[in-house]
Amino acid sequence: MLEKLKEEVLIANKRLVDSGLVVLTWGNASAFDPESKLLVIKPSGVSYDKMKASDMVVVDLNNEVVEGSLRPSSDTPTHVEIYKAFADAGVLGVVHTHSTEATAWAQAGRSIPWYGTTHADQCHEDVICTRPLTEEEVDQDYEGNTGRVIVDAYKGINPLEKPVVLVAGHAPFTWGKNANAAVDNAIALEEFAKMARLTEQIAASKPAQKLPDYVGEKHYQRKHGKNAYYGQN
Amino acid sequence: MLEKLKEEVLIANKRLVDSGLVVLTWGNASAFDPESKLLVIKPSGVSYDKMKASDMVVVDLNNEVVEGSLRPSSDTPTHVEIYKAFADAGVLGVVHTHSTEATAWAQAGRSIPWYGTTHADQCHEDVICTRPLTEEEVDQDYEGNTGRVIVDAYKGINPLEKPVVLVAGHAPFTWGKNANAAVDNAIALEEFAKMARLTEQIAASKPAQKLPDYVGEKHYQRKHGKNAYYGQN
Amino acid sequence: MLEKLKEEVLIANKRLVDSGLVVLTWGNASAFDPESKLLVIKPSGVSYDKMKASDMVVVDLNNEVVEGSLRPSSDTPTHVEIYKAFADAGVLGVVHTHSTEATAWAQAGRSIPWYGTTHADQCHEDVICTRPLTEEEVDQDYEGNTGRVIVDAYKGINPLEKPVVLVAGHAPFTWGKNANAAVDNAIALEEFAKMARLTEQIAASKPAQKLPDYVGEKHYQRKHGKNAYYGQN
Amino acid sequence: MLEKLKEEVLIANKRLVDSGLVVLTWGNASAFDPESKLLVIKPSGVSYDKMKASDMVVVDLNNEVVEGSLRPSSDTPTHVEIYKAFADAGVLGVVHTHSTEATAWAQAGRSIPWYGTTHADQCHEDVICTRPLTEEEVDQDYEGNTGRVIVDAYKGINPLEKPVVLVAGHAPFTWGKNANAAVDNAIALEEFAKMARLTEQIAASKPAQKLPDYVGEKHYQRKHGKNAYYGQN
Repeated sequence: MLEKLKEEVLIANKRLVDSGLVVLTWGNASAFDPESKLLVIKPSGVSYDKMKASDMVVVDLNNEVVEGSLRPSSDTPTHVEIYKAFADAGVLGVVHTHSTEATAWAQAGRSIPWYGTTHADQCHEDVICTRPLTEEEVDQDYEGNTGRVIVDAYKGINPLEKPVVLVAGHAPFTWGKNANAAVDNAIALEEFAKMARLTEQIAASKPAQKLPDYVGEKHYQRKHGKNAYYGQN
Repeated sequence: MLEKLKEEVLIANKRLVDSGLVVLTWGNASAFDPESKLLVIKPSGVSYDKMKASDMVVVDLNNEVVEGSLRPSSDTPTHVEIYKAFADAGVLGVVHTHSTEATAWAQAGRSIPWYGTTHADQCHEDVICTRPLTEEEVDQDYEGNTGRVIVDAYKGINPLEKPVVLVAGHAPFTWGKNANAAVDNAIALEEFAKMARLTEQIAASKPAQKLPDYVGEKHYQRKHGKNAYYGQN
Repeated sequence: MLEKLKEEVLIANKRLVDSGLVVLTWGNASAFDPESKLLVIKPSGVSYDKMKASDMVVVDLNNEVVEGSLRPSSDTPTHVEIYKAFADAGVLGVVHTHSTEATAWAQAGRSIPWYGTTHADQCHEDVICTRPLTEEEVDQDYEGNTGRVIVDAYKGINPLEKPVVLVAGHAPFTWGKNANAAVDNAIALEEFAKMARLTEQIAASKPAQKLPDYVGEKHYQRKHGKNAYYGQN
Repeated sequence: MLEKLKEEVLIANKRLVDSGLVVLTWGNASAFDPESKLLVIKPSGVSYDKMKASDMVVVDLNNEVVEGSLRPSSDTPTHVEIYKAFADAGVLGVVHTHSTEATAWAQAGRSIPWYGTTHADQCHEDVICTRPLTEEEVDQDYEGNTGRVIVDAYKGINPLEKPVVLVAGHAPFTWGKNANAAVDNAIALEEFAKMARLTEQIAASKPAQKLPDYVGEKHYQRKHGKNAYYGQN
């Protein structure tokens, strides 16, 4: 059942590891089939090298396992809420990671300002950081409410225009037209989240003492000048 | 003797290198056999690629070598103190590294606040940074006292709830139900230690000047808009 | 047509990925043939592992495709402006990346001061960060004007003496005597851009509390002293 | 001639690249033969993958090439000055890199304080940053004077106790009992230089807002508590 989607979800999960976004088992990718209204998701806490397509778990929009012998990712209800709200807008793949730089922004509770074209190539305007969940939301349906807090933050926003979000104190979720696109967006987010941190650091930083010009000239000229003596000619 | 444990300890030591936590020979993993009350530990200063299971050294709780032709890790007495105090609580594997981010917190003498769920997934509340050793403790039994300072800091705490600790001015020790779990915790610590540093940086950092909206729009639209001309379709 | 140049451009594009300068498809390298006044450039948004020499696109100085079935990089008009202005000075290869550290300087809108000999070995004096494009320039011919803003910033400067530049809010462009040299300069820029950020951080940073001398001595002596007991002899 | 030493120097140079300390061709390792008073050094500006043992250049203490068809590293006179002053103390291998973190300290003109045992395991007390060279020293014999400025800074110091040094505005030189040990010290320096930067950052940094305890507890308990539902059991 949904064999092609299982294969895609497997590949997406492995790309997360290969891209360095996932440490140990901290990440999961899923895909949604709009016909059957079922999602395919990684099993919980299983090592990535041993995972096979047949280990992927099929779940319905009530969080019930429809097929699969393993327990689905504990974050499944978050994926479900995202598909319930965003599948009609074309969101058919979802990824969750704890990638370092994006998670640090989430932990700081800050939205990521659009500082450059790298960000603008992937995400329209700032990346939203959601509000923290209340104690009640955590107690009653933690993973489902994580999805609802994300959906709330997107009122009036096309989810594909901002395919990456930070959950305060937690970590990013990303999505796309399929699982592979959601992985692309997770990779892009990690990269421009790092750039944003460095941009603020460099913008606020004071110039240090420069190299004396006579040292700089010496080095430049010994390699590129008329009498250069670096290299073999 | 303890052949299975030697194999596990070898694998744990090699995982430390593969995970990038160990530079040169700066790290060691051990495991404890609660039946015989013996530990198996890496030999001191030996290159990781050449290490074989039969090089692992068997040591008793008096730091005496019971089997093995090589000298055990110079940090053996620290491992011994940890097992003496924590083995009853289920600690049967111990790891020591000088992993970059965790060591920087140890050198700064700061405990790591729990800033996010990545940390909370692995460690209950803050990571403790021990007090520095006194000159007398260093002179008399440096490695044993390093273990005692750790154990002192855990009065009233279940060691498996906080399976990672920082020794001030030195570096982390981590543990678990076996050597492999101790390595998992060393990997997790390094990751959330880095996140904690970045979280404080981002929380304290001031926004820089944003991209002009007309540049951001241009980039977003040339790739995703109606008249997009990025890519092949 | 221009088969040798296509091979060179392919290799240059792959080196960008292998060097870690390019994430996903965010980069492109081109080369210019001064005889025919044609450039060879990477196709837009194509995955690097699948690219073949025959996929490279041949473009003239009016941005018209002369040969090739794929659309050229959307940044082609920027490359064209650079060759129009700098080819006579010997610039026959151009590279564009969004490499992390260089892009962060570009996003902060700061030129990179020459802080050390690593910089001076590759680039004469500071790396220029251009002015931002105006809204009109973006609207009318974004990619062409990106090239013109670069060229304007080089009035009176030998482009080969400063073979790397930052476009404000965007990212670096680099060049050289051929595509391979342009890649070398992109690699060098990323490295000394990082060094410059760290230099300012370290220069402004206040010393922390040192290690107690008795701990330092203990560690130094246990490994290197007369009675050393670290390692196997 | 000196075939064994050439092999060692080749291996040392390749280890510099494999360890990530060298970008492009920015590094060199040499070894000294105390019998013949000759050194073996890497050729200048040659790509590391193509280098063979027979490419290594033999040079005497007057900087004259004794054997080899390639030009020796342009930094040869610095190596020569180090051997002239330190070989009697047992320094028979020298390495020069522009490794990122150590170079940033050199560019900031700061000595590296001994902040932890990682540093103390490799280097006695602080790492010295030399004074900058004067314009005259640069003009007259730049590379030789670089060596002399290092040697001057070591008056009364056993060079093997501090086998790593920073040349202000330039980069590190390291040494040891042979070329391989000099590489070990270059690797160690890069690592504890980074730790020192992070230590100062963390020591000066202010705590951010913590995770609400109810979120932390939720995550800890869903994975490790009595009713844990993370993973497969």
